[in-house]
Parts: sequence; C-alpha cells; structure tokens
Amino acid sequence: MGSIGVAEFFSIAEGIETLDKFLKGVDVDVYRAGTTCPGKYYFIVLGDTESINTGLNSLSNEQKKIAISGVSEDILKAIKNQNSKEIKSSIGIFEFLSISESLYSLDSVIKKTDVEIVKLVLGYGIAGKSYYVVTGNIDSIEEAIILVTKSYKVKNYRKINNPSNGILRYI
Amino acid sequence: MGSIGVAEFFSIAEGIETLDKFLKGVDVDVYRAGTTCPGKYYFIVLGDTESINTGLNSLSNEQKKIAISGVSEDILKAIKNQNSKEIKSSIGIFEFLSISESLYSLDSVIKKTDVEIVKLVLGYGIAGKSYYVVTGNIDSIEEAIILVTKSYKVKNYRKINNPSNGILRYI
Amino acid sequence: MGSIGVAEFFSIAEGIETLDKFLKGVDVDVYRAGTTCPGKYYFIVLGDTESINTGLNSLSNEQKKIAISGVSEDILKAIKNQNSKEIKSSIGIFEFLSISESLYSLDSVIKKTDVEIVKLVLGYGIAGKSYYVVTGNIDSIEEAIILVTKSYKVKNYRKINNPSNGILRYI
Repeated sequence: MGSIGVAEFFSIAEGIETLDKFLKGVDVDVYRAGTTCPGKYYFIVLGDTESINTGLNSLSNEQKKIAISGVSEDILKAIKNQNSKEIKSSIGIFEFLSISESLYSLDSVIKKTDVEIVKLVLGYGIAGKSYYVVTGNIDSIEEAIILVTKSYKVKNYRKINNPSNGILRYI
Repeated sequence: MGSIGVAEFFSIAEGIETLDKFLKGVDVDVYRAGTTCPGKYYFIVLGDTESINTGLNSLSNEQKKIAISGVSEDILKAIKNQNSKEIKSSIGIFEFLSISESLYSLDSVIKKTDVEIVKLVLGYGIAGKSYYVVTGNIDSIEEAIILVTKSYKVKNYRKINNPSNGILRYI
Repeated sequence: MGSIGVAEFFSIAEGIETLDKFLKGVDVDVYRAGTTCPGKYYFIVLGDTESINTGLNSLSNEQKKIAISGVSEDILKAIKNQNSKEIKSSIGIFEFLSISESLYSLDSVIKKTDVEIVKLVLGYGIAGKSYYVVTGNIDSIEEAIILVTKSYKVKNYRKINNPSNGILRYI
C-alpha cells in the first residue's frame, strides 16, 4: 500500500508547473491529472509516504492539497473507474465541492466501514466538484454517513435503502 | 402517446434519491438522466399521465419540475438525438436556462405549429442550460417565435431564413 | 496564407445567426465552431483578409472578435489538434479568459519567436477559457513570455525548464 497526494489549482498553468516540480523533486508516479470544467487543474500522484509528504509540503499556490497514506486498492481502482457493479441492500451518495475532500473522506469510509465503491466522479463534467456512491447494508451506510458528516466538509448526501432496479445506470 | 415528467436538482445526491423514490412509487421508465456541468442532476421519466403526475406531486427539493401529457413521438426522438436531418426554408433557435422550460415549450411548438425538430441539447456541455432548433417555412417559424416568447421563459431566440449551406454542422 | 476571424458570443442563438450571416455575406469557410461549457458559442472562419475583415466589421452583439491576417499553418494545425509531439528544453504555458485573446497572442508568439505549439485548448471543457503550450529553448520561451505579458490580456502563465519526462500527457 502506497500513499497518494492530491492537489487542485485555480490556474492550469500553475497546476502543470507544480506537477512538473513534484515529479522532479520526489519519486512518484502520476495516477491521474487534468483540467476540470471551470478551467481548473488537479493531479493525483502515487508513491511512498515520505515522497508524497515531501512533495506536498513544497507546494504553494494550490487551492487544496491532501495526502492519503496507506491508500486502499479500492480507491486506486475507483480513480481508474474500475468499480463494483453489484449493489447491496443500501447505497450512500456523497457530494463534495472539491476532489481532495471527496477522496479524503472516501479513504476513511473504505477503511472504517464495510462498504464498497460503486462510483467515483472527479471533477470532469461537474465543474471541479466530486461525488461518490458506496454500497453496503443499511447499518454500514449509516456508519458511513455519520463518519462523513462528522469529519468532512460534505456538500450533500443521501441514503437509499433497497435501491430500485437499474438505478445504477442513472448515477 | 404517454406523458413525460422532467425534474432538475441543484444536488446530484438529491436528484438520484428522488429518481429512486419515483421509480419505487409509480410505474414509469427512465428516459434519460444524468449530471450536468455545474454539478446539477436531472431526469426525464416516461409513463401514463396519472403515474407521472402522482410521481411529480410527491417531489420536493427539486429546482424545477414539469409534466408533459400526450407527448409527441418527435420530442421523444429528439431527446434521444434522433432528429430530422433536412432543413426547410427557415430555422428557429431557442435558448433556455433550464431543461424543463426548454422541453415544455418545445412540446407546445411541436403540437401547435408546423415545424420539425432539427436539434435538442439538454444541459450537457452547456452548464445545465438547453436549446433547440426547429425548421419549417417562414410563417411556421414566426408562429413558433410568437408562441414561445408569449408563454415561456426563453433566454434568447433567433430566426434564420434560407440558412446557409452546411450551417447544421455548426449548430 | 489566409486570414482567420474569431468571434465569441454569450448566446448560442446569436452566435449561430451571426455565423449564418457571415457565410452568406462573404466567401469564407468555417474552420471550427461550437458551444462551450457555460452555454456560450464561438466560431473560427478562414478566408482572404478582405472577406474576413468585411465579415467581422458587420458583426454586432458578439462578446469578442478578432482577425488574424497571414495566419501561420502552425496555428491552423493547432486548432485542429495537430501539434508537435516533441518537447524541447523549455515549455511555456499561457492561459486566457477568451478564445480570441488566446489565438491572437499565439499568432504573435509563433510569428515573432522561435517556438512550436505543443497544445491548444479552445473553450471546450474549461468554461470558454483557452490555454496553449509552446516549446523552444529557454531564451525563446522567455521572449514569448515578454511578448504575451506586454501586449495581451493573459490570465496566467508559467515557464518550465527541462520539463519532466512524460509531462506532456498531463497537459
């Protein structure tokens, strides 16, 4: 298990310059990077905890940055859109104003509650915002809601018990 | 001819939850649903008039909602991007701030004037706004303009007589 | 070498109407046209200098318009996303609030400094804004920066010397 670093920028030029510095300064791989609707930029890098922390500490000008250590395979897969296709008895939907806060909270949810990731949307097509959907039994989804609302800046969330057939196609 | 119900939401989580309730409460099919640029959500459902009305009446928290009864095949096709590829002597272009108002007015235009739908864009890529282009002879387009400007909240509109060759590719 | 005319509109209906008038009034080809995120519209037309100037002079209601005469093949290719794939010792990244200002400055950079275009993004997916990346040796990039910052409304810019391996994929 490695760590990931996430950084978001109001300027595309600043974002690309910062990613370049990051890649020159520490030994990390770019996991995903790009522009989002309003003309912002973000990147997600993967490496060992020390490299990620050193790299993030050297940043300036970013809108937001986070490090997630011991990141789970599930989150790495979700960032690449490789998610569970099966829905359990309940789902939880969580919306955030930033990619960082979304990933930060999702990491915690995956580590501390018994849910699986169904969908993760990072910025593109929704103005740099982010949302994810997790599935589990009712108790797990309720635990996830308590966790997210207590510790993270969530824009909005919903719990759906026994989701209707085919709803996954419209999420 | 069935009815359609259209609802738009400022929150993705609320939109999905509401669609789920809709599908559980009444017998309708989802015709189209998804997120739009600024992080909003909308859905269009198809069913009999009573189901659509019952479903819409139970909604709360939506930004906007409408029911269209006796919806024409042309609109259903247009929502799926199956439009006429042939332009007549005139075209009319109508822009709206919401998907609901766009569809609501288009239904009326199709029922009351002699025009065909050339293009319908619903939210995606244009920040949740919507526009459509209809074609007909000059009189029909002028009737459509009178109808839309009198009864609907149109953001902007234009009439083009004898549109230039190939203009359809840039609409 | 021909000329290009660029126009941007707050309204899609106005933009399409104006393009139609343009095509009827003077002998030009549409090089690229379409909507951008917030529900705006732009077009780029190609023709001889007189036609472009006559056409642009007749416009009203546009948000912004420019003519570029003697436009280089490099810019025409860049508009079609046919760019150099090779990065030299430095790159410069320039961001603008409009497509017009971006192209206007890029034309000048290409004509007056020894750089090549690596990327040009026009509006789509970034809310109608625009950015480009050029590559050259350090001196050329510094010349480009002086030129752009002195004469154009640039939102932001950055110079990267010896860009890290693979950075082009994340631009």
